[in-house]
Amino acid sequence: MNKNYIIPNEWSIIEEGFCAENVEASESLFSIGNGAMGQRANFEEDYSGNTFQGSYIGGIYYPDKTRVGWWKNGYPEYFAKVLNAPNWIGIGIQINTTKLDLNTCKVSNFKRELNMKEGWLSRSFVAKLPTGEQIEVCTKRFISIKYNEVGAIAYTVKPLNFSGEISFSPYIDAGIVNEDANYDEFFWEILQISPEENKGAILSKTLKTEFHVATAMAVSFTSNEKPIEIPQQTLIEEKSITYSYTLNISEGETATIYKYGSYVSSLNHSNEELLDAAFKNVTEAKQIGFQQLLNSQIDSWKNIWKTADIVIEGDVKAQQGIRFNIFQLNQTYMGTDARLNIGPKGFTGEKYGGSTYWDTEAYCIPFYMATKDASVAKNLLLYRYNQLDKAIENAEKLGFTNGAALYPMVTMNGEECHNEWEITFEEIHRNGAMVYGIYNYVNYTQDFEYIPKNGLEVMIAIARFWHQRANFSEAKNKYVILGVTGPNEYENNVNNNFYTNYLAKWCIEYTVDCLNKVKHNYPDDFERIINKTNLKAEETYKWLKVAENMYFPFDAEKNIYLQQDGFLDKEISSVDKLPISDRPINQKWSWDRILRSCYIKQADVLQGIFFFENKFSKDEVERHFDFYEPLTVHESSLSPCVHSILAASIDRMPKAYEQYVRTSRLDLDDYNHEVHEGCHITSMAGTWMSIVQGFGGMRVWDDGKLTFNPQIPKEWKSYSFTINFRGSIIKVYKSQTACKFFNESGNEIKMLVNNNEILIPSNQLVTV
Amino acid sequence: MNKNYIIPNEWSIIEEGFCAENVEASESLFSIGNGAMGQRANFEEDYSGNTFQGSYIGGIYYPDKTRVGWWKNGYPEYFAKVLNAPNWIGIGIQINTTKLDLNTCKVSNFKRELNMKEGWLSRSFVAKLPTGEQIEVCTKRFISIKYNEVGAIAYTVKPLNFSGEISFSPYIDAGIVNEDANYDEFFWEILQISPEENKGAILSKTLKTEFHVATAMAVSFTSNEKPIEIPQQTLIEEKSITYSYTLNISEGETATIYKYGSYVSSLNHSNEELLDAAFKNVTEAKQIGFQQLLNSQIDSWKNIWKTADIVIEGDVKAQQGIRFNIFQLNQTYMGTDARLNIGPKGFTGEKYGGSTYWDTEAYCIPFYMATKDASVAKNLLLYRYNQLDKAIENAEKLGFTNGAALYPMVTMNGEECHNEWEITFEEIHRNGAMVYGIYNYVNYTQDFEYIPKNGLEVMIAIARFWHQRANFSEAKNKYVILGVTGPNEYENNVNNNFYTNYLAKWCIEYTVDCLNKVKHNYPDDFERIINKTNLKAEETYKWLKVAENMYFPFDAEKNIYLQQDGFLDKEISSVDKLPISDRPINQKWSWDRILRSCYIKQADVLQGIFFFENKFSKDEVERHFDFYEPLTVHESSLSPCVHSILAASIDRMPKAYEQYVRTSRLDLDDYNHEVHEGCHITSMAGTWMSIVQGFGGMRVWDDGKLTFNPQIPKEWKSYSFTINFRGSIIKVYKSQTACKFFNESGNEIKMLVNNNEILIPSNQLVTV
Repeated sequence: MNKNYIIPNEWSIIEEGFCAENVEASESLFSIGNGAMGQRANFEEDYSGNTFQGSYIGGIYYPDKTRVGWWKNGYPEYFAKVLNAPNWIGIGIQINTTKLDLNTCKVSNFKRELNMKEGWLSRSFVAKLPTGEQIEVCTKRFISIKYNEVGAIAYTVKPLNFSGEISFSPYIDAGIVNEDANYDEFFWEILQISPEENKGAILSKTLKTEFHVATAMAVSFTSNEKPIEIPQQTLIEEKSITYSYTLNISEGETATIYKYGSYVSSLNHSNEELLDAAFKNVTEAKQIGFQQLLNSQIDSWKNIWKTADIVIEGDVKAQQGIRFNIFQLNQTYMGTDARLNIGPKGFTGEKYGGSTYWDTEAYCIPFYMATKDASVAKNLLLYRYNQLDKAIENAEKLGFTNGAALYPMVTMNGEECHNEWEITFEEIHRNGAMVYGIYNYVNYTQDFEYIPKNGLEVMIAIARFWHQRANFSEAKNKYVILGVTGPNEYENNVNNNFYTNYLAKWCIEYTVDCLNKVKHNYPDDFERIINKTNLKAEETYKWLKVAENMYFPFDAEKNIYLQQDGFLDKEISSVDKLPISDRPINQKWSWDRILRSCYIKQADVLQGIFFFENKFSKDEVERHFDFYEPLTVHESSLSPCVHSILAASIDRMPKAYEQYVRTSRLDLDDYNHEVHEGCHITSMAGTWMSIVQGFGGMRVWDDGKLTFNPQIPKEWKSYSFTINFRGSIIKVYKSQTACKFFNESGNEIKMLVNNNEILIPSNQLVTV
Repeated sequence: MNKNYIIPNEWSIIEEGFCAENVEASESLFSIGNGAMGQRANFEEDYSGNTFQGSYIGGIYYPDKTRVGWWKNGYPEYFAKVLNAPNWIGIGIQINTTKLDLNTCKVSNFKRELNMKEGWLSRSFVAKLPTGEQIEVCTKRFISIKYNEVGAIAYTVKPLNFSGEISFSPYIDAGIVNEDANYDEFFWEILQISPEENKGAILSKTLKTEFHVATAMAVSFTSNEKPIEIPQQTLIEEKSITYSYTLNISEGETATIYKYGSYVSSLNHSNEELLDAAFKNVTEAKQIGFQQLLNSQIDSWKNIWKTADIVIEGDVKAQQGIRFNIFQLNQTYMGTDARLNIGPKGFTGEKYGGSTYWDTEAYCIPFYMATKDASVAKNLLLYRYNQLDKAIENAEKLGFTNGAALYPMVTMNGEECHNEWEITFEEIHRNGAMVYGIYNYVNYTQDFEYIPKNGLEVMIAIARFWHQRANFSEAKNKYVILGVTGPNEYENNVNNNFYTNYLAKWCIEYTVDCLNKVKHNYPDDFERIINKTNLKAEETYKWLKVAENMYFPFDAEKNIYLQQDGFLDKEISSVDKLPISDRPINQKWSWDRILRSCYIKQADVLQGIFFFENKFSKDEVERHFDFYEPLTVHESSLSPCVHSILAASIDRMPKAYEQYVRTSRLDLDDYNHEVHEGCHITSMAGTWMSIVQGFGGMRVWDDGKLTFNPQIPKEWKSYSFTINFRGSIIKVYKSQTACKFFNESGNEIKMLVNNNEILIPSNQLVTV
């Protein structure tokens, strides 16, 4: 059963009523972040019920010792783990002699709201303590976009049936552990604890990686909204610092603590400056004040939404879903730091160590490219460019030579972080996504210069990989690629995965194409690259021989490409015939049964058709969709969006809508029964694509042209989305009866219905 | 580089000269055991150099928490580990003020001998202590075959250049750990420490499994071979008990400690009786005395060799090799306890948790069957029969129904202990070996009654498995078996592995055949089995439909069966073209590279041809051998023996001899650079087969007839072996010129050269 407790609302995620069973799910859903840091929606006060505590700092990781069943050559020794960082949000609350703990109170009027328009999280409730005191609590917190090392909390308590003592005990606790640790190790070393008046900080460093982090807090108080001073008591323990402030308060009055927190790390400061920088941050934040910080937060989000919002009329759950996806994507990655990337759980959980998967290139780049400045997508590409040496090293470990690169399946710093051979060593299609990301970026932005400056080196290394990885089959008289895992991870170690072979061929051809263009148009860069990579013309002829003679498994009778060799030896039976009790199969079936079944985890052949739709006729798309979609169980969060987009492209709007709903509310409705572990961040970009590329039919073609083909699900009145296309803002509006285009000023753009061309403000042609 | 320090000798394994680098290898090679308990050849005295301490008790294991990269449904939660047991051999030695520790002494005249004829281990050396004292030490120890809970040590010290004090500190240490522990846990709980005069014991239990074990010692002393009494000092620590005995001794005199040890476990005693039983054992052993115990040990081994020995003339290394293999097999398993089995490392190491692999049925049964009473092989079959319920449970976990059984890949108590999906879930050919073991036993012993009494239930459950595991391929219009790993583990998750498909078909057909025989000849058993298994005739028709329409990958051009679908898409290149620096490939190549290569770890198609040689013409055997042998890297200890036997069967004696040498001295010469981890016990049975079935050409046919076809490598003068065939002892002698057969009394058996028939004493026909 999916969860169904989030209150539908256009701009907010809302939970009403306290239910201990939902605490961990809500901690994921109500997470906040600013691209540089983030955290799960843990309570500020103590909570003795089930909770998954998590605060995270972008780029700070721990190389946990890997755990394997049987060691294989080439496995990484270490597995970069997203690292739970010192807790800065904690505020112990004591009423007279009793600690506030929602797990032991009678709780009423509980409400939680994540306001996505303005970027803050609030919580309010009435708690009756075991000792009888009743209090009303209201909290609000956010992590600042503008001051991206700072977060702020306002925590207000009002006694409802008594007058008495209230103690606030704000603390920093660096004695935190990871939920996800292979050997239950402690990952941090505490270096210094610095108490000051109404301020405090802890300097700690991660073991092994030696990232240094200072975590600071500053506090102030109001009573009935007027500033007050309260004497501070200090408790310093081995790994934490806690202050205690006690005041007397009368029934009906309010007491508020403002807590400002900051993380500063050695990624951005020298180790020696860290404590000072952290103190400076919280001191300034306190000076600016909670309300002013909040106002700037609202401004920041207003600015983000300007080019990112999607409006859906007539379906509030769909509206909430898409905004939640866009909101979380922005909380996870802002695009200003090429050392960061988009972890599959963002700042909402720890599962899947490492931060970067092929999801970034295959799913996320289109979103960031179309909703932000082109520099953001470029930073994502530069992330891989900067890790090219490590990708070459990685390929060398697997026996490749001559500068061939294999990008890691999962990484934090360019090193491989995954250790299942069928993925780590065999899910090599990821290498193709690296080139596809570049191709996509260049088509969208027309920034071809990225290729001579950076992209081509990556492409050459990858073409070399494909050339070496294929082998000639005497039996088939073709080049084959043996022993791979495709995007459909419910097949392992298969031969001639269509998607992989197709990407390999395409990568080589696109690389040679770009080489020729660079040779003619950027001769200096060409010279530099050829010297650096020691590339000779003969080598490229060898690549092309492989590309031109690549084998693709094909069934003549069904007239379709097969997912891999031997696919039709399986018992072919559609997913709708599977008993409900067998699903999801990855929780019910043993792995061998999944592998030999025909069931597909996520788009595989269809992923190829999605990437290269322009190479397939509509008939071909339909034939493949009709064969593969019914076999697909969509047990990857990355699956429904691709199916939604392809369904829309062949005018199957009911299917497109069904898959859209699944992707857009995957976490809000907890389709996969795992939202307590964190949200599926990267697939949220797929949700965005489902509207913009799926319903909106947006395409950017090889020649750089942009086209739309908007359709609308019958369930909606209208929808609109906005994209930043080469510096111009275009808004697309589609209702059941109309389709309109607007520029940044809100003026409708002229649309020539006959030849489907519109003029966008920068005078570039747009065909519709 | 292989090791080369073992001195060739017909009956003994001998090491001369002390080399710290060989200590761990020698600890494996000089291991002793009696089928019920065993131990590595650790020194009695303290040793501060590298050492791998190991004492083991048959059937006592620990369910260590599994360690996996990524959990999959169906994986076992626990992994049964061979358990290092409390140390009973330890004797600290102190000379005046200095501890004896060979790592800090100047050692000369060091000699170690494992006397295989008589079953004891000795060691002698002269040590010059850092403080200048020089002593000569002689030790001898054995684990009694007759008193199978008892071991004994004689440890003699003679001062060479001084008169002074000598202290003996015999101890029991239950504070031992496993080399192989997933999370470095301690596996034992100490329950009681019982000191008595010149005796002591510790009662401990294994955590989780709660096996109770009492470990006892008793000591006595002689000086110049005359009994003496020495006052005892007692030291009891948390997990150990140590006595100290100090005497004054003059230059040239000797002092000897005799230490008797015993393990008794809750497998054979009630928990309450354990301490008493252990004390009784050591008290009685002390009364019998070291020399008498040793005499009975010599008798026991004489008796074993009578039906097990193989004599090779003209090649002392080959002689030593084969006796070492036979000796270790007997040390590992005596066949008296159907709860025990043959662990791949026996009592020589801990690697590969669990004790039972398909090695038992595929390799070991022929050895035990032919060198011991038929009850021994039957006990090995009953081991599986007794675990049938667990095998059915195991199959249920993987989605099989209706009493289908999948025997575990690795087990201690019937539960699966392996956790790599490609092995655990997919290396299902092991199920066929269970039936092959029964078939082999029935042919050899003619004890068909085993089938109605026990075997048939196992066979029905396995036939059900194969029926369910195959599926109909529309594309091939045949039944296929997808997603398996064959014996060649350098291929994972392949389709239509020839060996697996062949075994599946054969298992079904043999089962139906036996069902029919039981129906006619054992109607009561038939009735009972049909009721118990709820088997209907229609179900067997469905099995047969699968068997009759089983698909086998075949290449018409080469006229050979293919190892699996698509094998010829690989680059086919023989092993001799691989650079030495790339071998062994499992230590040099990443797993994906191994998988997509054509290189074969161990016999796969050839394993099938070996099992069912009677179904293949000599031409067919040759064609398959010539295709697959050159691709085989023999990186499994189980590989060379099969190739040796097949080579002999097609008259390729040089190849047969080459592979024989490899298998027979695998550990003595440390071909795989891993003997320090323990010896390869199960493959030793393959060595025995290489002579008896390979060179000797012994075959037992479906109709029960026994034939020989002896050949001899040109390197040898002669060889002879002895088998116990249905109660009759037959000795086969083959020299370069002659071939003779003898009965138990040493009389030559009449041999009719023309029709190749000999009469064996029990009047059964034997064709030669």
